[in-house]
Order: sequence, then C-alpha cells, then structure tokens
Amino acid sequence: MTDSLTDLFWAPDPDGDPAALTYTFGGVAPVASVRPRTRLSTWTFDCFGGRVRSTSDLPSEVCDPRLLNPQTGPFYVEGAEPGDTLAVHFVSIEPREAWGVSSTVPFFGSLTSTPQTATLQPALLERTWIYEIDATDRLVRYSAADTKFTADLPLDPMHGTVGVAPPLGEVRSSLTPGDWGGNMDTPEMRAGTTCYLGVNVEGALFSLGDGHARQGEGETCGVAVECAMDTVVILDLVKGIPTPWPRMENDTFIMTTGSARPLEDAFRIAHQQMVLWVAELTGQSILDAYQLVSQTALTPVANVVDTNYTVVAKVPKSVLAGAVAMRGTHAALRQFSR
Amino acid sequence: MTDSLTDLFWAPDPDGDPAALTYTFGGVAPVASVRPRTRLSTWTFDCFGGRVRSTSDLPSEVCDPRLLNPQTGPFYVEGAEPGDTLAVHFVSIEPREAWGVSSTVPFFGSLTSTPQTATLQPALLERTWIYEIDATDRLVRYSAADTKFTADLPLDPMHGTVGVAPPLGEVRSSLTPGDWGGNMDTPEMRAGTTCYLGVNVEGALFSLGDGHARQGEGETCGVAVECAMDTVVILDLVKGIPTPWPRMENDTFIMTTGSARPLEDAFRIAHQQMVLWVAELTGQSILDAYQLVSQTALTPVANVVDTNYTVVAKVPKSVLAGAVAMRGTHAALRQFSR
Amino acid sequence: MTDSLTDLFWAPDPDGDPAALTYTFGGVAPVASVRPRTRLSTWTFDCFGGRVRSTSDLPSEVCDPRLLNPQTGPFYVEGAEPGDTLAVHFVSIEPREAWGVSSTVPFFGSLTSTPQTATLQPALLERTWIYEIDATDRLVRYSAADTKFTADLPLDPMHGTVGVAPPLGEVRSSLTPGDWGGNMDTPEMRAGTTCYLGVNVEGALFSLGDGHARQGEGETCGVAVECAMDTVVILDLVKGIPTPWPRMENDTFIMTTGSARPLEDAFRIAHQQMVLWVAELTGQSILDAYQLVSQTALTPVANVVDTNYTVVAKVPKSVLAGAVAMRGTHAALRQFSR
Amino acid sequence: MTDSLTDLFWAPDPDGDPAALTYTFGGVAPVASVRPRTRLSTWTFDCFGGRVRSTSDLPSEVCDPRLLNPQTGPFYVEGAEPGDTLAVHFVSIEPREAWGVSSTVPFFGSLTSTPQTATLQPALLERTWIYEIDATDRLVRYSAADTKFTADLPLDPMHGTVGVAPPLGEVRSSLTPGDWGGNMDTPEMRAGTTCYLGVNVEGALFSLGDGHARQGEGETCGVAVECAMDTVVILDLVKGIPTPWPRMENDTFIMTTGSARPLEDAFRIAHQQMVLWVAELTGQSILDAYQLVSQTALTPVANVVDTNYTVVAKVPKSVLAGAVAMRGTHAALRQFSR
Repeated sequence: MTDSLTDLFWAPDPDGDPAALTYTFGGVAPVASVRPRTRLSTWTFDCFGGRVRSTSDLPSEVCDPRLLNPQTGPFYVEGAEPGDTLAVHFVSIEPREAWGVSSTVPFFGSLTSTPQTATLQPALLERTWIYEIDATDRLVRYSAADTKFTADLPLDPMHGTVGVAPPLGEVRSSLTPGDWGGNMDTPEMRAGTTCYLGVNVEGALFSLGDGHARQGEGETCGVAVECAMDTVVILDLVKGIPTPWPRMENDTFIMTTGSARPLEDAFRIAHQQMVLWVAELTGQSILDAYQLVSQTALTPVANVVDTNYTVVAKVPKSVLAGAVAMRGTHAALRQFSR
Repeated sequence: MTDSLTDLFWAPDPDGDPAALTYTFGGVAPVASVRPRTRLSTWTFDCFGGRVRSTSDLPSEVCDPRLLNPQTGPFYVEGAEPGDTLAVHFVSIEPREAWGVSSTVPFFGSLTSTPQTATLQPALLERTWIYEIDATDRLVRYSAADTKFTADLPLDPMHGTVGVAPPLGEVRSSLTPGDWGGNMDTPEMRAGTTCYLGVNVEGALFSLGDGHARQGEGETCGVAVECAMDTVVILDLVKGIPTPWPRMENDTFIMTTGSARPLEDAFRIAHQQMVLWVAELTGQSILDAYQLVSQTALTPVANVVDTNYTVVAKVPKSVLAGAVAMRGTHAALRQFSR
Repeated sequence: MTDSLTDLFWAPDPDGDPAALTYTFGGVAPVASVRPRTRLSTWTFDCFGGRVRSTSDLPSEVCDPRLLNPQTGPFYVEGAEPGDTLAVHFVSIEPREAWGVSSTVPFFGSLTSTPQTATLQPALLERTWIYEIDATDRLVRYSAADTKFTADLPLDPMHGTVGVAPPLGEVRSSLTPGDWGGNMDTPEMRAGTTCYLGVNVEGALFSLGDGHARQGEGETCGVAVECAMDTVVILDLVKGIPTPWPRMENDTFIMTTGSARPLEDAFRIAHQQMVLWVAELTGQSILDAYQLVSQTALTPVANVVDTNYTVVAKVPKSVLAGAVAMRGTHAALRQFSR
Repeated sequence: MTDSLTDLFWAPDPDGDPAALTYTFGGVAPVASVRPRTRLSTWTFDCFGGRVRSTSDLPSEVCDPRLLNPQTGPFYVEGAEPGDTLAVHFVSIEPREAWGVSSTVPFFGSLTSTPQTATLQPALLERTWIYEIDATDRLVRYSAADTKFTADLPLDPMHGTVGVAPPLGEVRSSLTPGDWGGNMDTPEMRAGTTCYLGVNVEGALFSLGDGHARQGEGETCGVAVECAMDTVVILDLVKGIPTPWPRMENDTFIMTTGSARPLEDAFRIAHQQMVLWVAELTGQSILDAYQLVSQTALTPVANVVDTNYTVVAKVPKSVLAGAVAMRGTHAALRQFSR
C-alpha cells in the first residue's frame, strides 16, 4: 500500500478481432498487471460490441450471441489473494460518443417470457432506439419510434458490469451477475462510488464493461441506454477483509447487493449482508442491526432481466454514528480522485 | 362531483371492544357513508391495536393473532361502482403519541423462515423496541437493546394499509396486500400523495390503518416504527376509469404497485401497469412506452414480508410532456388540501 | 362418533340460478348440516358450470368470470370446532356425462403470461376440446383439433377443489388453494383417498367441486378434462387433532400438501409438514424424520396454474413401521366404504 | 455410426490426488476419447470423494468445499459438434460398497435457510447417517440416530450428476444443474434410461458422478444415500438434432427436464420442452400438444436443494401413437445393452 497513485492506461483495440475480447469472468488470461492504488484509464465497448448503430440494426441480426457484453480486462491486481477485497473507485465515467442505443431483444427483458420463464407465446417485436447524448447539457434525448413523442432524460453514466473471477473454478458469462459481481446493472455504479469485490483467485482478475448513459431501476426491457465509455477507476486492495457479495460505498451511503432468483432471494442476500455489515460497523448485536436496517434501508431494484436478478440495499452513513467501512478506503480513494 | 369539500370526522372508539374493529377488506358493514370530495378526519390504531407498549411487551404474548392490524373503516363512498376509481388524497398523517414501536415476531419477516418459506430452523428471538417520536424536530429516535448505540432517524409518517373491498366476493385479511390495496407497506403512502384504488363493489368500502412513523424499503424485519396516527384524507371518485392495481401520484411522480409472490411477479405487475399507463397518458405505442419506462423508472421495494410482496414503480412526470392522469384529480385534491 | 353411517343425499338444483351456487370457501351459509360419519351422496357441476359444451363454446365468451368453479356445499359438520380435523373419505367419483371438456383460457395456464406473471405479449389462442368419456372401458378419448391425431387416456376421476372455510375471517375464491384446501388440483384426490382438512370455523363448512375425468400433474394448460361428477364421500371428524395444511391418506401412502408461490414454497410447506408428521407418527426426532423423508418421498406437482401453486409429498406407509395416522380414520372409513 | 459396440474401461485412480479429479463441467481436458457406440465401464466416487465414512465424519469437517462432487470424465466423444445430441444409455449402475452415506450440511437443503435464501437463523445440526446396502436383497437399510427406528428401503441406484461442457465458454461447478445437465439429481437417471444431452463444444466432454443408492423426489435434505458406483453406459451420438435441455427416455416414458429458480421456471422449461417435443413427434400443432401434455404428464420434482432446482416432465409413450424419438436411439441402445 502506498500513499501515491500509479497511473496506467490500457484499452482494447477498437479495430481488433471481436472474438479476442473478454466475454467471461474467469477463464481468461490477464491483459495487464497492476499494483494496488493504480489509477486505470481505459474505455469499454458497449454491450453490443458497437454493432447496433442505427434503428435499422436489430441485435438478433447483427450480433453473434456468443460475443455479447465484451469486457475490458481482466486486470491482475498484484498481491490480491482469496480473503482480500478489491476496491474499485469510479473516478469518472463518460460516454465516448454522442449517441447511445437501446432495443428490445426477442425473449429477453422483464415483460416478456424468456428461455427460463418459458411460455408458448411469440416474442415481442424487436426494435432499436437511438438516443442522442448531450455531454454538455448532461442529457440523454429519447425519441419514440411510433409517434413524435420525445423526452430529455438526465445523463447518469454508470457501468452495468463490474467483477472479478468467480470461486470454485467457475467461468461465468459476462451476462450473469453473482457473488463475483458481473452484470449487476445497478445505476449506483456511477462516478464517485467505490465498489468492493471479494477476491476469489490470485490477482482477482478484474474486468468491467456495459456502460449505460442511464437506466431505469430494474432495466425493464433488458437494455439500458448502452454506450461505449471512457472510464477512470482507482484499483486498491483491502487485505484480509473478505467480501461475500459485492458492496458499494459513496459519500452518503453504504450499499450491499444480492444477485439471485427468485427476486426475494436477491433481496434476502442484500439485506442479510447489510445487517451483518451494520452490526460489524456499529458494534451492535445482529438483532439490533436487523432493527436499524429495517427502518433505514433504501432498496432500489437493479435488474429483473439478467440470468440472476439484482437488488441493492442502501443505508445512510448518517445513522451509523461515524462508523468507517473497509478501513476508510472510500474516503482515501475519493481524496485521490479529486 | 362538487367544487367544495364536505367535512367528516369519524374515528373508532379507543376504549371499545377490540373484536369489534375491522380486520378485513370486504365482509364488514360500513361505519359511515361519504360523498365524493369529502375531507375525512380520523385516526387509526397501530398494527398491534395498541397492545405492545413497552420493551417487555412481546407481540406473541400480548396480541391475539386474529386481532392484528385493525383498520379504520370501511367507509361507503356514495356513487362508487365497479369500473370507477377511488382517489384517496393524504392531506396529513401525524403520529398520535410521542412513541412508536417495532419488534421481531417469530417466523415473520424477510430474514427468517416463515410458515410459507418453511424450514426446520428455530425462530429468531422475539424482541420489542420503543422509539421516541419527536414531532417538533421531525425525528424518530432509535435505541439499541444490547448496546448503547442510538440514532436519530427522520420522521416520515405513512400508512402501511390502505384499500377497498376485493373482487370475486373475497374477504381478505388486513395483513395481505393485493389488487384491492391492503397491506402494501410502501413509504410512498405519505402526506401529499394521492392513492388510486379500483372499485370492486358498490360504495368501494374504503379502510386504512397501519401507520408507520417511518420504515425502510422492504420493511425488512416485518415491523416498521408502528404508531397510532391522526390522519386527514380527501376521498374522491373518478367515474368510469378502472384501476386494475393500486396507483399513486404526488407532485413529482406517477406510481404503480404490484403485490404478488415471487417478488419478480410484483415487479412485473408494477412495470406492466406503468408501461400501459405511460402509453395511455402520452399517446405512445406500448413498445415505445416500454422503452421510456425502462430508462426512467425508479423501483423501490415496498415489502418482502407480507403474504404478498409489494414493489412500486415510479416515473417522473417531467418525462411525460405534461400529460395529466386521472383527469387531474391529484392536482385538484392537492389544491383543496392547501 | 358412532359405529354406523348416516346417509344423506344432497345436490344442487341443475336448473337453478347459477348465481345462487357457491363460489367461495367461507362467507356462505351452509346448505345442510351433517353429523360425523355421514355418507354424503351428491354431485358437482364442472368448473364452467356446464356452460362450455362444444368446441365452439369458448370460456371467455360463454362464462361469467364471477361464476367459475361452482362448489357443492357448504356442509355444516356438527361438532366441528377449530383445532379439529375434518376427514373426507372419497368412496366413489364418477363422471355424470359421457363427455368432458378442456380449453385454453386467455392469460391462464403455466405456459403463458398471466395477470401476475405479467408481460406485454398477446394471449395464446383460446380453444375448446371435447373428450369422450367411456365409463365402461375406463377411457378418456382425446382428439386433436388441428390434425387427426387421437389418443385413449385412462379414466382417473378426481376432485380438483375440496375445502373448508379459511381462518382469519377470510373468504376465498374457489379458484384458489391454500391451507383451507380449495383448488389444489391434485390427481391424488381420487376414490379410495381420505382427505384431512383442519377446521377453522364451527361446523367446518365443507364444499367440493371441480371434477376431472383425469389431469396431468401440474395441470399444465390450466384446465383438466372437466366434467360434472356423481360423488359419494364419508365425512368424519377427528376431534382435537389440528391439521395445519391439507393431508391425504390412501392404503399405500400418507400425503401432505403445500399451496403457495413461488413453487419452492409449496414444496417446502409439503415437505416440512411431512417431516413433522413422520416424526410424530414414528416417534423419531425431527432430524431423523428429515432424513427418512429425504430418501423416501415422492413429490408429484399438483398445479402450477392457480393463484397458489400446489405440491404433494407422499411417503409410503411401508417405511413407517406400522404407524397409524389420525387414529386410524382412513382404515375405518375405508372399511365403511366397502 | 456402427452396428457394433466398442468397449472401453476407464476409471479414476482411487488413491490419486483428490485435487486432480474433475469438479466442473467445462474447463477440464478430456481423460479419454471415445467413438460413438462405445460401451464405457467405469466407476464414480461418491459426492464427498469418499471422505465421509462413519457417523462421526461430518462433511464440513472432513471435506474441502472446493473438492465436492468429483466427476468421472470428461470423455471426448469423437465427431460430436454443437447442434448434435449425445445419448447416454445407462446399462447398469451398482453400488461399489455395502454402505452408503447421507447427512445434513449447514445451510444446505430445502428445509433450511441457505446462502441464497438467506436468513439470520442458525444452521440445523450437522449429522451423518450410514446406510447398509444389501445388493442381493436390493435394500437400503436406514437406522435413525436418536431412536431405534429402522426401515428397509428399496435399492434404486442412479446418478445425480450427468452432463457435458456448457455453452458460452462457461465452466460450471459439478454442484449446479442447467441446460448442460449437471447436478439434476433425478431418480429417473437409473439403469434402463437413455439421457439425451445437447452438445455445446466439440467432443461434448461428457462426465458423470454423484451416485445415489436411492433418493426421494426433491432430495429434501440435500443429500441422498450417496455411494461410489460401478457404472456401465453406452455413449452414442445423434447427429444434427439439437437438444436445448436434457431429455430422457426409457421403455415407457419420454422425459424432459428444466433446471432453474424459482421452481416454477424449472416446471415451465420442462413442460414447454415436452410440448414442443410431443408436437414434433406426433405431428400435432403446438396448441394440441399443449392440451395432450396437460392431461397426461407426470411431474416428479427432482431437486429443490441445488443452485438450480430441477423438475422432470414425463409423458407415456402409450399416448404418442407409436412415435419414435431421436431416430430410435433408445431402442437401439437398449437392444445392445441386453
């Protein structure tokens, strides 16, 4: 651990072979090795690998289903071992282009049957929407396809997919979220937030991708305002503290996540983890922490569309009597990022 | 419909027979009849009927399980017929006492097995917490039971249970939420909000209860900061507009609810209803509305503890191009309430 | 309790007002009062009230949604009190007509979206199939609608809906199963089986209906081979033994049921109840009973289409070392029925 | 494809390094290459790798959680390509030892909270049961731990885990079932059955393990009567026929599986797959096949304990008018196996 940051720029080749990109957590050799307290400047492809570029591009026609949601990484973090926590502080997340894209995708999304919630009904119509991104006015401009309706939505950039190699020797698709992180699709993963991920293998093998100019909570149709992102993160290591499920922290909240099906299991995981964390941070008994969380937690749904669903629990730091999480990592990295 | 309000005060007898109170939606004769545009001033018992008053009172010992969550009502709304919508505008919700109560209850709550999520494990310890309510400073003061930890939480009064008689001749316990409303337990049901409930029987038969000085989203342990409430609502009727699932509106958001198990079905209901509502309000196609909702909805979990779970979907009015819901009922009642 | 049976014939008026029939458990005055050990000969309407009679009758066109699944009853059982168990032994169940009917129904069934598993997809095509019932050869003859395919299926008559008034003052639609019984839709409810139902109100208020000439496990499309039934049951009372969830017994198996959503909760209820029952019957510890049930239970799904889903757990009596359930009620009633 | 069988014996070294065994589907180099129509004689470790051998051995004490459920394999099947189906006909499955073992495992099983269905309750007591296996009398002898209760159960050997490498480059733990097969834990996987698995990667990479002397449907406590198995299978290839989810066939039934959470999704997958299969086999429309399956399917639950739950749907061949599945593979392999 040092008092200064190392800087690294690493990014995928925009003109390289799409099949050479990273589509899994685990199972892929690292693209670079970084020391803790490295400021990594990079960029990420959008979830379609840049292949859906106009309203006439339909994902099922222009995308190879094996090459969805490419990740930038993995990065080997020196010194990271099982039992440690990787801290990922998002310094900035900015759309690379002046446009983003969303779509419906056959049998994907929360308001359609899917391969798992299987029915005999036909798919919804597949359609693509292109959004104008105005980075100056911080707006995302929506235009309806069937009418002249338009709306300006606040720009709120974030990463849908952030994670490390899973445990048990598993290799998981970048489409799936779980205890290794992955495709959690929570709008809380924005600049100013620190994400904590439990390390399962040596070097952690961190990747990220799936930038969203913004998304609703639940990512209802399954596709946010997808865009390539220029992103700066500070990677750091919290030695000797395990993190069973991904957690987050910003200046105002501590946050836990759960990713599972059915959705109540995602809720149960997030809230059980929050109760245990609050108990540990405040020195309260489990039962008292259960009580305090019950009265103070915010619980925004993250996604109800991926192969696991994700729920976030948030507790304001203001009710924690000044307790400091993860040895003050968030505050330290926040300081660096300014 | 009139341009002026009728005033009515009706309240339960605080010293009456607890068995004479209302514990169901449906199946109970109305306590009073009101015209549309009536300002009803009333009060409600807490969910324990006032029987849990100190940390030595345990719900399983002092409460009759058949007499939980008493409701004030039902009120017969003149002219209400199936196919109409009852509008309930919350003018004010104020704790009647300077204290509130929460507890764990054996085999009830989201982080325990229950009679439905049945296991062979023993129950969590039953315990009661008493909160000090400071109506002046708008605070709810929490004190841990096992340590000296305390925290001041913002006072945010709301009603957990609001509903009408169900369809199909059913009579449902006040512990259950569903398409008739009932025990939805969402913190959105606060002063300034209008709740829209579909009418299933003549007169609608509206009741409310289960006041909370505040609660977390999800009501994790199953019990909020429960308290008796002094409440003023304006009841109004939106003739000829059906409301399949309870909706809400405040100055900033339109909101839909879904109450079901598993939790993803509650999400699906709330979001399907929101998509249909946005399509209707903005004149967009269903598919466009699906897209807009996907990028703009907030989705706070309401409860994951009741016999059905409840999810709320919220879309900001700012993206609806000035569309007016329910013939402007919210704005009209809001005006009256000032 | 007596050593002889009382005989009663009671049946609905086939030409009476459909609206006068019984469509709920609870909330309806008894049609007759019976003593324990009464042999009741009766008949039941099919789930459509006899209104779907040919392939050109579509349920959504010919049925009033408020008048689905009429029940025969309720019968007041003298001496039945909360804490007792009502035993219903099925002596015979025979189709009244030489035909049965099935159909698809819009947004109902396991392989379609529904009002709860809500999507934006259109409904499956509504269609009616008429089956020939051959009571002599014990066959149900299926004919495809779109091709000349036919198949002879074994006749296996049963009642989909069997129950008593629910607890907590609730009144529940005959379309819903729960701890009061109701629309469980298990093919185990055939002649030779005794069904045990916990009594919630004085007189129990027993009803039955929804005869099926046969059904698959899960009732996949939501509608079995529906038919009016001539049915003989013996009603008896097991005083002082509560039954939290409906149980069944035949000469070979003891059976428990669970009705809930998600389906794993129905499984958990049925298996938790079976573990507790086996422990009680054999004098084993809960943990040993858990082990024995884990290796011996059969678990046929009953329905995945109703407002609650139902799972049945069956343990062969052969592994219970001669243990006798419910004071030998099944054996006694079986003797009577011969 | 040939008219004669090739014989291969391959088996793990019983004294080798446990860490060198196979614990995943995918991600492991093949141990041997086989031609289609190979009769493979092998054996499999029990799910504990043989480390739980007496009632004083507790899994959490004697097992490394990373070395659970070792598989025999993977076998590379020559000519197998994505889009083909691997047929695995079970010729014989016989316990290698005169004993089997079951246990409770902390936070694992259907009647306990788990890491996903997370609660704050303590774990159930961990305990081990040893069963005597009598291969001559075909019995499995159960002895209770806390009382003198015993029961003789029919020997019914099967494999809980059978699968191939998954799609999308994933590597999945042998503890998980899915569309690649894996830990489905269905008692239908017995001698005389042919299992059909869709091929996702060249060579298919088939493995099997997790022998059970018997299990109940649902595998309630999470652990069957586990034992090492001597097993003979015939591996064959059905070129050009894809199999989206594992299917089975025996002399009487065709069977489909679904593995997912919540359990109703496992049901939906299995029944959707059955409807599509029956339509294809009989030439009926989808809607007619839906109807026929609705009246004829048996639906035994397989497991409600693994990271995905598994449901099996079975339709008797007797209602399929002589239709032949998978080009008659089952009958052909059955013939070979006699």
